[in-house]
Amino acid sequence: MLTKILIANRGEIAVRIIRACRELGIRSVAAYSEADRFALHVKKADEAYCIGSDPLSGYLNPQQLVNLAKSVGCDGLHPGYGFLSENPLLAEICAQQGITFVGPNGAVIRKMGDKTAARKSMIDANIPVTPGSDGNLSGLDDAVNKASEIGYPVMLKATSGGGGRGIRRCDNETELRQNYDRVISEATKAFGSADVFMEKCIVNPKHIEVQILADSLGNAVHLYERDCSIQRRNQKLIEIAPSPQLSQEQRETIGELAVRAAKAVNYQNAGTVEFLLDSDGSFYFMEMNTRVQVEHTITEEITGIDIVQEQLRIASGLPLSVKQEEIQIKGFALQFRINAEDPQNDFLPSFGRISRYYAPGGPGVRTDTSIYTGYQLPPYYDSLCAKLVVWAKDWPGVIARGQRALDDMRLFGIKTTIPYYQQILKSEDFKSADFDTSFVDMHPELTHYSLKRDPEELATVIAAAIAIHSGF
Amino acid sequence: MLTKILIANRGEIAVRIIRACRELGIRSVAAYSEADRFALHVKKADEAYCIGSDPLSGYLNPQQLVNLAKSVGCDGLHPGYGFLSENPLLAEICAQQGITFVGPNGAVIRKMGDKTAARKSMIDANIPVTPGSDGNLSGLDDAVNKASEIGYPVMLKATSGGGGRGIRRCDNETELRQNYDRVISEATKAFGSADVFMEKCIVNPKHIEVQILADSLGNAVHLYERDCSIQRRNQKLIEIAPSPQLSQEQRETIGELAVRAAKAVNYQNAGTVEFLLDSDGSFYFMEMNTRVQVEHTITEEITGIDIVQEQLRIASGLPLSVKQEEIQIKGFALQFRINAEDPQNDFLPSFGRISRYYAPGGPGVRTDTSIYTGYQLPPYYDSLCAKLVVWAKDWPGVIARGQRALDDMRLFGIKTTIPYYQQILKSEDFKSADFDTSFVDMHPELTHYSLKRDPEELATVIAAAIAIHSGF
Repeated sequence: MLTKILIANRGEIAVRIIRACRELGIRSVAAYSEADRFALHVKKADEAYCIGSDPLSGYLNPQQLVNLAKSVGCDGLHPGYGFLSENPLLAEICAQQGITFVGPNGAVIRKMGDKTAARKSMIDANIPVTPGSDGNLSGLDDAVNKASEIGYPVMLKATSGGGGRGIRRCDNETELRQNYDRVISEATKAFGSADVFMEKCIVNPKHIEVQILADSLGNAVHLYERDCSIQRRNQKLIEIAPSPQLSQEQRETIGELAVRAAKAVNYQNAGTVEFLLDSDGSFYFMEMNTRVQVEHTITEEITGIDIVQEQLRIASGLPLSVKQEEIQIKGFALQFRINAEDPQNDFLPSFGRISRYYAPGGPGVRTDTSIYTGYQLPPYYDSLCAKLVVWAKDWPGVIARGQRALDDMRLFGIKTTIPYYQQILKSEDFKSADFDTSFVDMHPELTHYSLKRDPEELATVIAAAIAIHSGF
Repeated sequence: MLTKILIANRGEIAVRIIRACRELGIRSVAAYSEADRFALHVKKADEAYCIGSDPLSGYLNPQQLVNLAKSVGCDGLHPGYGFLSENPLLAEICAQQGITFVGPNGAVIRKMGDKTAARKSMIDANIPVTPGSDGNLSGLDDAVNKASEIGYPVMLKATSGGGGRGIRRCDNETELRQNYDRVISEATKAFGSADVFMEKCIVNPKHIEVQILADSLGNAVHLYERDCSIQRRNQKLIEIAPSPQLSQEQRETIGELAVRAAKAVNYQNAGTVEFLLDSDGSFYFMEMNTRVQVEHTITEEITGIDIVQEQLRIASGLPLSVKQEEIQIKGFALQFRINAEDPQNDFLPSFGRISRYYAPGGPGVRTDTSIYTGYQLPPYYDSLCAKLVVWAKDWPGVIARGQRALDDMRLFGIKTTIPYYQQILKSEDFKSADFDTSFVDMHPELTHYSLKRDPEELATVIAAAIAIHSGF
């Protein structure tokens, strides 16, 4: 087993990794920017080292992080999610320097990060991918022919594109003819390449992803799926495990697909295979995430398997602690991403000082967070400040528990997504488990609520007003 | 389903019941003494009513509580544990006044509260009880004969006795002859009756108890056992589910015994059948607790069944939500009773202001508490201030998680049993699952630890010292 690892991350996932380390007897080392000197992961780790005065550059410098790991005697490095977790360089530098990277090797990360390469691997492994041109279009006529084969709507995409640029949706041939030259022009200007390809546009799909674990001995299992359809601008808000929208047959099918996908690329460690589920019941491979995910918690709740501990075991060369036939799911789990955002103001970030934080408790409630009362949320990082996870034995039960736990939670001083989630849980579409990725856009009314105010905060305001008027 | 219930209790169990009510859509009403006006159950209930300036008498007055329930429109009353929960009067007054008591009826509570009557019911139902004289001894000769039948050591007990008085342990015939007249004399003086009986003394037993649920339709199930052998002066400290000291065969046997015991007395609602497990593997019925127990949480963790919700369902006349064959246990759970006590000073109560409380989080961790930062723990009630519950899939895992969660917890301002539990988890006897009710007495060295101090508290002390010496 690894003996000491550097956590190349911050926030709740850093705390999560420290907890797994402690339970396995592994020494944990935090790396932190100056802005993070009061962060919880710094307090909780066995050792902590500042990696610079810039809030971000230290977390994004693979060489510096690996050097730190080596210099303080670490034999492993956990990248968490975000930051460098899917940057093949970090994995590769670790390998060169003799530090065990807790994740797949650089070549796999690189392949799955390249959409065309990932798509090709999946096609070779007989995993369904979105129908498309499988290569660049030779011209407008080719595009029109391909589109009529695939069926509208289609997406025209710049082959070298990314970040949402060089992409156009075409609902019919007229739109395709109008957009074709525009995309080529955009692609040329933005990416220096006129290559474009075509994919079928899956309209309002459900986002279904499968958690997999694969060890260095050739064993691979899936831990069933999560439904992440409740999202806004590709940002997941509430995640659900298992999906209340799948049949048992679909569940088994997609699990097997995910294991096949993992084996096809000789995947090692924890990973997630993301699929789109079309309204006709078809699954299409979307992408593979080569790291632990924010929403791994809900899979832990329904399976009882500690995914971060498994990551550390796998990286240590140990076999998976479970076989596929031993993995059973029980009940339902929801994860609420409590973000420091104002849902009533276009989800604008709301950083500041947490004047009060009190975690909910009781049965079926878990919190993963990096905040505490008095903590000043730094404005440099993402807005996720707490994850609230609830479990119950059935779907109505988990909704009731979610509502209760959100009510129980006390998080004051900043605006959060808590009241918005309380509205979502009341919506009939959610309660009847009938939603897809258009849910948030289709329900703008759910941001119309009035806020409960912290009674203590209110008392302070009133006291101040009295003091002013009475001349103190 | 019941629509509105009065919670005739306080502290963490009142909060626990409020949570179950909220999840079932039942309105909750708190009753509180003036000393409890800042208590969490008062803040969390839908309504709250003061039941007097005396800290205790309101919680102990069945007529007043039932009157309150009626006057505010409750259709049910939950007694929690302690206080009036095992007083048959409360159940009977509820029945007379048309308020549904969440528990068994008064007659069953009365019968199980009377040790002789309970023992007789169990003998009739063919449940093993401690071997004994089954009636009063007729004289010293009778005593000597019975003792040689039963085998030493034996206990001589005053039939009308209680509270630990009128009881003597006799390890051989000489001691029996010495003690016989003394016990009769004590019994006569203290209880006005010379009647004495004899029971076999089970030396250093394990305390094993079985959770049962029985509905009004004749269904009864058990939720397997808890091992509560880690106790001090009959006060449970750490509870474990399932017992790591039982074989699967013993587990099934004792579960069936408990269901038979419940059926024998037409039990309804949640209850616990407590057994002593002798070193030779024999189980003896000890007593039945006719209420929810402090340690119900760990059974919830290993079965996924919400016991308080089941209590409310049963009281509402609904069937149990599970059948025996559907109840499976998974993993291990520990509950730590975090008491406001100083283990290094003979567990003296340590009431005061909670200067900081921060609940641990992450996987497999649950807290049930009624405290919060700034809360002044009233000195009138028992010292239990938080329950920390951890779950993991195996015995070494749950010990590691317990250690981690105890480390994670921040509870400052008072002395607690947290550091003592950290020592217990390190003990080889505990880790190897080899302990009985003598564990605490046999390990006095576990109270020898040095305390970590709250760094913020320490900073304040240092700042004050600097200020004094620098003449501020």
